Amino acid sequence: MTSSDGRGDAPPPSGGGWVPRPDRQPRAERRRSTHIDRGGRPRMVDVSDKPPTARRAIAEAEVTLEQETISLIIDGQTPKGDVLTVAELAGVMGGKRTAELIPLCHPIALTDLAVEITPDRGSACLRIRASAATVGGTGVEMEALTAAAVAALTVYDMVKSVDRSAEIRGIRLLEKSGGRSGEWRRPERAPGPGPGGPRPKGVRGPRRSPQARSG
Amino acid sequence: MTSSDGRGDAPPPSGGGWVPRPDRQPRAERRRSTHIDRGGRPRMVDVSDKPPTARRAIAEAEVTLEQETISLIIDGQTPKGDVLTVAELAGVMGGKRTAELIPLCHPIALTDLAVEITPDRGSACLRIRASAATVGGTGVEMEALTAAAVAALTVYDMVKSVDRSAEIRGIRLLEKSGGRSGEWRRPERAPGPGPGGPRPKGVRGPRRSPQARSG
Amino acid sequence: MTSSDGRGDAPPPSGGGWVPRPDRQPRAERRRSTHIDRGGRPRMVDVSDKPPTARRAIAEAEVTLEQETISLIIDGQTPKGDVLTVAELAGVMGGKRTAELIPLCHPIALTDLAVEITPDRGSACLRIRASAATVGGTGVEMEALTAAAVAALTVYDMVKSVDRSAEIRGIRLLEKSGGRSGEWRRPERAPGPGPGGPRPKGVRGPRRSPQARSG
Amino acid sequence: MTSSDGRGDAPPPSGGGWVPRPDRQPRAERRRSTHIDRGGRPRMVDVSDKPPTARRAIAEAEVTLEQETISLIIDGQTPKGDVLTVAELAGVMGGKRTAELIPLCHPIALTDLAVEITPDRGSACLRIRASAATVGGTGVEMEALTAAAVAALTVYDMVKSVDRSAEIRGIRLLEKSGGRSGEWRRPERAPGPGPGGPRPKGVRGPRRSPQARSG
Amino acid sequence: MTSSDGRGDAPPPSGGGWVPRPDRQPRAERRRSTHIDRGGRPRMVDVSDKPPTARRAIAEAEVTLEQETISLIIDGQTPKGDVLTVAELAGVMGGKRTAELIPLCHPIALTDLAVEITPDRGSACLRIRASAATVGGTGVEMEALTAAAVAALTVYDMVKSVDRSAEIRGIRLLEKSGGRSGEWRRPERAPGPGPGGPRPKGVRGPRRSPQARSG
Amino acid sequence: MTSSDGRGDAPPPSGGGWVPRPDRQPRAERRRSTHIDRGGRPRMVDVSDKPPTARRAIAEAEVTLEQETISLIIDGQTPKGDVLTVAELAGVMGGKRTAELIPLCHPIALTDLAVEITPDRGSACLRIRASAATVGGTGVEMEALTAAAVAALTVYDMVKSVDRSAEIRGIRLLEKSGGRSGEWRRPERAPGPGPGGPRPKGVRGPRRSPQARSG
Repeated sequence: MTSSDGRGDAPPPSGGGWVPRPDRQPRAERRRSTHIDRGGRPRMVDVSDKPPTARRAIAEAEVTLEQETISLIIDGQTPKGDVLTVAELAGVMGGKRTAELIPLCHPIALTDLAVEITPDRGSACLRIRASAATVGGTGVEMEALTAAAVAALTVYDMVKSVDRSAEIRGIRLLEKSGGRSGEWRRPERAPGPGPGGPRPKGVRGPRRSPQARSG
Repeated sequence: MTSSDGRGDAPPPSGGGWVPRPDRQPRAERRRSTHIDRGGRPRMVDVSDKPPTARRAIAEAEVTLEQETISLIIDGQTPKGDVLTVAELAGVMGGKRTAELIPLCHPIALTDLAVEITPDRGSACLRIRASAATVGGTGVEMEALTAAAVAALTVYDMVKSVDRSAEIRGIRLLEKSGGRSGEWRRPERAPGPGPGGPRPKGVRGPRRSPQARSG
Repeated sequence: MTSSDGRGDAPPPSGGGWVPRPDRQPRAERRRSTHIDRGGRPRMVDVSDKPPTARRAIAEAEVTLEQETISLIIDGQTPKGDVLTVAELAGVMGGKRTAELIPLCHPIALTDLAVEITPDRGSACLRIRASAATVGGTGVEMEALTAAAVAALTVYDMVKSVDRSAEIRGIRLLEKSGGRSGEWRRPERAPGPGPGGPRPKGVRGPRRSPQARSG
Repeated sequence: MTSSDGRGDAPPPSGGGWVPRPDRQPRAERRRSTHIDRGGRPRMVDVSDKPPTARRAIAEAEVTLEQETISLIIDGQTPKGDVLTVAELAGVMGGKRTAELIPLCHPIALTDLAVEITPDRGSACLRIRASAATVGGTGVEMEALTAAAVAALTVYDMVKSVDRSAEIRGIRLLEKSGGRSGEWRRPERAPGPGPGGPRPKGVRGPRRSPQARSG
Repeated sequence: MTSSDGRGDAPPPSGGGWVPRPDRQPRAERRRSTHIDRGGRPRMVDVSDKPPTARRAIAEAEVTLEQETISLIIDGQTPKGDVLTVAELAGVMGGKRTAELIPLCHPIALTDLAVEITPDRGSACLRIRASAATVGGTGVEMEALTAAAVAALTVYDMVKSVDRSAEIRGIRLLEKSGGRSGEWRRPERAPGPGPGGPRPKGVRGPRRSPQARSG
Repeated sequence: MTSSDGRGDAPPPSGGGWVPRPDRQPRAERRRSTHIDRGGRPRMVDVSDKPPTARRAIAEAEVTLEQETISLIIDGQTPKGDVLTVAELAGVMGGKRTAELIPLCHPIALTDLAVEITPDRGSACLRIRASAATVGGTGVEMEALTAAAVAALTVYDMVKSVDRSAEIRGIRLLEKSGGRSGEWRRPERAPGPGPGGPRPKGVRGPRRSPQARSG
């Protein structure tokens, strides 16, 4: 980050406990890193030979807010208008543009896209659920996740003049169906911290081997 | 959610401890809700009279991954290419399209937009920092936040075939400068859970009154 | 519209004979309005189960102009270039972007889109016809209508420096085919005012019941 | 339209009283038409030397509907959600994309854009008003008109399953200020048919000479 | 180009040996030119009746650079970042937007899109190869060519501060398969000047008759 | 390119005289290549502190065609419509979207953008000239180049059914003015091969040192 690397005006590192950047890795790892040059070229997964199947994915996100902001939203008193409807609509529209935003996503003809935001007074957050569907050769996880993320960002925009500390978290896939890998469902959360809280060890989905696939 | 409201095919509610939807609010609140009809029309903040000033905003996000996925990323062994560069670039490009995604954002001429992703082996996550700047009458928080979010979504897309349980969290503003409200910096996090963990009570930014503003 | 609803800088109402805004409805209606909260969430129609069929839709629009402007257009003397070709092309390109503009439209793979503008010296207007087709699970009315509207807006832009009073009217569907609802054709206009003129009472298409459908 | 011109598959002309296409003009006009080749190249107006000034434009549109559809909209019973909020938001978002849709429009940094839809039960129509503003070297008429048109198209989309005969009309500029040409206001409508009805002779704005300008 | 044609502020012609503009054609040709008015309306090819088939197209482009710039690129010392990865990714993303850029292209659901850039030290150029695929009723030549062109433009952008004289050339189709016209492959280049050099007489592909087709 | 690097379905290398890929570089170079990891992060140039100045850039491109295709274009007999007007307009519209296509370009408010295509019968090509202008902190070379490239691609699309071997070449900057680096003009071409032919040694513009700049 010194001037010698020509990037002196980069945002200042937040310091603290962050691990060193890859270029400061110990020797052995740097050697493996040269594989980045070999296999690292960005590439869309080729789905030309995949038969079209019905696919659906559901994702969620949440926006934590101050208690008072939740009340303003429910009462429709926020400065830029009805937060829930505007953010739901923004989520739908954003989800339709996933292939423009996510570099290696395929453009697909979505057959359904719905976003639903529910205020949770007790946890002082809004819960966002997005559901996307298509009939095709590639999944719609990214469409559901992007819809949820854009809805969440829109909530932030609608309340930022009254609650700048809002935070978006828990953007994740809940379930997906269709395609070669079939049904997948996020393992049940343990009782306690609730959605968006720290993820308990060992509740992740089944690991898959590192080969390119889209199913 | 019954068939009588014509929304029978909406994604099923995840049930559990969620509070009732606004339409099931107790009477007093529903009355206040009618204000949604009055003041709820979506509306961009009018900045026609704001003098242009130099503005900057910095936002962050993180993507939690399995330990093994972090290693694949550092070693450049992920199936769709070099995750860090692709996601950084997607973040920059996504941030430039903020006004298309966020309904009530002004289109602005960004003068700078940088996204930096750092793997954190210890916490098994990638940390994303986005910095946006302009000279104009409106802030660039949403540009920084959108850049961070799109970078995070792109990470998810690049690794989803090997780690479907990845989760995006901690999308939030770190600091902003310029405009009427001047300098703002997110209060220091208490030591402990670290960035993206559960937010301690009482560390939010100063509350502002509920009037429309853009500064 | 008072300052108490936080919308004081909205465009001034044009006053006159406009009916009161919904928020000033009589009591009984406002009660029904609460259904907006229940069923009013924006939602794309789910066409996941619709079999693909060949669909076509034809729409029209017209732009009324001063007689002299019509002559300039026919003679190719307008300041920004050949109005007819530019507007026809803009219509085609705009129609391809329907799903980006109309929030709840499905993105579809159009198989045809043609826009044809004909000057009508006698009525001092340009007549625009747009025809769209696809093979899929959802109709293409919006694509045809959007193409016609963008072509009309482009005509306005090309002549506005010489004829600011131009007006766009008569944007409407002429016919559609394909899908569950089959063939539909706008009822014949009574002789007299011609296309775009005041619509005679009772010539509207068949009424359909208020359930979500896309056919 | 014969096969000899290679356009046999164009949409069929609606025939009737339409004037002949330009290519069938009498001889004298066709000669003038060759000017299209000379001066007809599409071209954006060069505003490089224009000083920035505050500009605003207000446009309107209306959507005629069946009486019953108006009631459904006011009561929030339409199949795809709350028509007014969705269409207002679509208008704002569409207006921001004017330079992408209208080929020779300059990309500009809008400082304000508001869309307001009012149901008019008596006339069985929705009235749309759009107001756009910028500080720059070129006007914002097209932004206001495009916002109004996209809002109107969105209304159509939201109700088309119950009222296919809806018609959009009266898309026109109401007033503009700023720039070289200063204040302009559409002449008062004569009493009678009301907005969107047939335009009385002689109420158009002042005619301007046919040179390229943007003010 | 005189002031009489109202285009006085057009970019100055570079003069020299350019042939006269169409409007200065000899008489006989100008007569034929009137066909432009008849058959010249822009029109997308109607592929509604084409059965979907697997299609692929490969295109190439090259960017000539100074020898020293090639070295900077290979060494990763260019001012705006890693040229090869950024340009490859930009090519993929640009190719996905072909239908937005090329007015009469159909929007299609790409199933594959890959861009590969290889530095050629000897010829002081970068060679770009783009491969696109779909299953549909229309070809993907334009997607491959657009991806190659956007990658090449991005290379230019990444090095323009150090090598303003970079030039893009040799954007052309290498091969295509699928559709009615089946397999096509660009004839072998004669030995000598190499790719992108002057094209020897007589090595073009088979000529086809001038009717609209898309295969 | 073996299966071990997971990229087996990449487009086949065209083999022949291409130099080895960077990952097969000799040892010394590979060491320098590790700088890619350090300094290679993609980054927009920060122009926040640049005063706005008037800037203009002119670029050119050419499309080589068969003689017979040139005649079809001049006579307006091409299957998809008037090639020159459609391609000029596509160039203008494409140039406006430069910041969406070129990852590290700043979004700017263009004040002028003109594209002019001239058929050159003698050389059997179309010559394209694009001129872009803005008043701002960053140059418009990329806008002029992108406009020229999109116009050229559009020509290809309009004639590809009759002349698949068309080739785009000579996309390059002709001149630029404004900004810190002031006036720049491409050195005169030596007489002989003409535009787009092999570039004579030593006619490139002045070399600049490898630091980030935008002027």
